[in-house]
Parts: sequence; structure tokens; C-alpha cells
Amino acid sequence: MRRVLYLDDLAIGHKFSTGSVTLTLEGCKAFAAEFDPQPFHLDEPAARQSAFGRIAASGWYTASLSMRLLVEGELTIAGGLIGLGCEMTWPRPTYPGDTLRVETEVLAIRVSESKPDRGIVTARNVTLNQHGEPVQIAVVKMLVPRRPVG
Amino acid sequence: MRRVLYLDDLAIGHKFSTGSVTLTLEGCKAFAAEFDPQPFHLDEPAARQSAFGRIAASGWYTASLSMRLLVEGELTIAGGLIGLGCEMTWPRPTYPGDTLRVETEVLAIRVSESKPDRGIVTARNVTLNQHGEPVQIAVVKMLVPRRPVG
Repeated sequence: MRRVLYLDDLAIGHKFSTGSVTLTLEGCKAFAAEFDPQPFHLDEPAARQSAFGRIAASGWYTASLSMRLLVEGELTIAGGLIGLGCEMTWPRPTYPGDTLRVETEVLAIRVSESKPDRGIVTARNVTLNQHGEPVQIAVVKMLVPRRPVG
Repeated sequence: MRRVLYLDDLAIGHKFSTGSVTLTLEGCKAFAAEFDPQPFHLDEPAARQSAFGRIAASGWYTASLSMRLLVEGELTIAGGLIGLGCEMTWPRPTYPGDTLRVETEVLAIRVSESKPDRGIVTARNVTLNQHGEPVQIAVVKMLVPRRPVG
């Protein structure tokens, strides 16, 4: 059973890891067909003519898989991972065959003034490929409950 | 056939619309099962106990559906919609039965100094529900080619 983390359990600089996932061509194409049907995500000849050079995963597939890794990873926030917003960059494409994992670092912690039973945690979630290169850097704000009294 | 837009065709304040999509309970659950398997996205009793009150869509489902709407909408950038990064907030949850559409406004345009055949366009993509309420506000930076000479 995984330990549940409250705001009170977190500190700036705390780090958390996830497992990993390897992208398949079929998974990349299935996601793109449903959510990002652009030729460079679906069609090999078209992808070769594009800036990607070959079929690349949708950035939203990278984002969605990163979420899956986080949900199953070490950052076991009480009540779940509830994001209020994020700033994301995709410094390089992700391709079929890449193996992704996410490293999280807590950047800021703030108790809510209006609702003192909760707070906002800012964390940096870096999705890395098998070469250790960042493919997505997301600075997220999460709603985190304080440990209940008594 | 849709007109293809180059950097030269865009101006600050230009607005673009999309079609709409209605979320189903099945679609919300299928996405969550694959990418965001948290109880409040999957299980009605658990969702009732959560801050959402009932099953809510994953924010990443909202983001992915918004991308689909954009790809099929009026913002027909030459070479496709290629995002370099974005700042997103989810001001309110999205629920099964909600109908979403996206409104885009161009905020900034900059020609690349190192690669003068392209530039970066900053746009605000607001995803609205059927009540006209924003459910996602995404300020995105996109790579946009200049119109080829000759």
C-alpha cells in the first residue's frame, strides 16, 4: 500500500520518480487519429517531408502518457493529482520506440489563505527519454490537502 | 479546400473558431482508464466524494479534444499546428454531456532572427463549454512558416 502525502509532508526540493513507458508506432498513430490527426503524426512519407523527419508522437500524447506515469508513480498526493494549471514546453520531439519516465521536483508550497485545509504545490515534472534528454518540461500547480487534524 | 495560412497572413487580434464536440461518459472513462486512472474520473461513487461531485473529464482529455477541434478548425497554418510550449489553466471542470469549442486569438507574432523563413506566433486558445464558460485557457507558442518567396 502506498503512503498518502499531504501538504505537510512535502518540502521544497523533494524529488519523486515514476516508472517508464515505451512508445509504440501503433499507440502514437491511434492517439493522433483520435486527437491530433496531422500528417506528420500519422503518415510516414508525410512525416519524412516534415520538420520531424519521421512519425513523431503528438505532444499531447507525451503529456497524457506523462500523466499516466505520474498517477502510478511516487507522488501519491492525498485525494489524487489535481492540476490547476501548467506551463509546458516540448524541447524535442518524441518518437515511437522512445522510453519515457518523469522526474518531479517540488518548487513551491503555499497554504491557501481562504481555505486553510489545503494549499497549492508548484512542481516541475520533467519527462525524459531513454537518453536522459527532456522531451517535456511541465511546471504544474496542484491542489493538495493539509493533513486532517486529530 | 481550406486556405493555408502563413506567418505573413496573421495579425495581432485575428480570431479563429472551431467546430464543437460533446463529451460522453464512455469517452471520458476510456481516456481516463488509459491516461489518468484516478477514481474521480472513473468511478461515480468515488467522484461524488471528491471535489468534482460527479465524474469529471481529465484535464488532459479536455486538452486533447481541444487539439482535435483546432486541427479541424479555421486556424489552418501551413505545415500544420506545431506547438513549442503552452501555459494552461483549467478554470473549471469538464463533465460528460458538456459541449466544447475553441476560440483562438493571435496575441503576438515574431519572425525568427536565426531562421528568417519562419516565426513564432503566440495565440490564446480558450476552450468554452455550452454555457460559454472557459474550461481551459491555453496560451500557446506555435512554429509558423513565412510565405515562400516566388
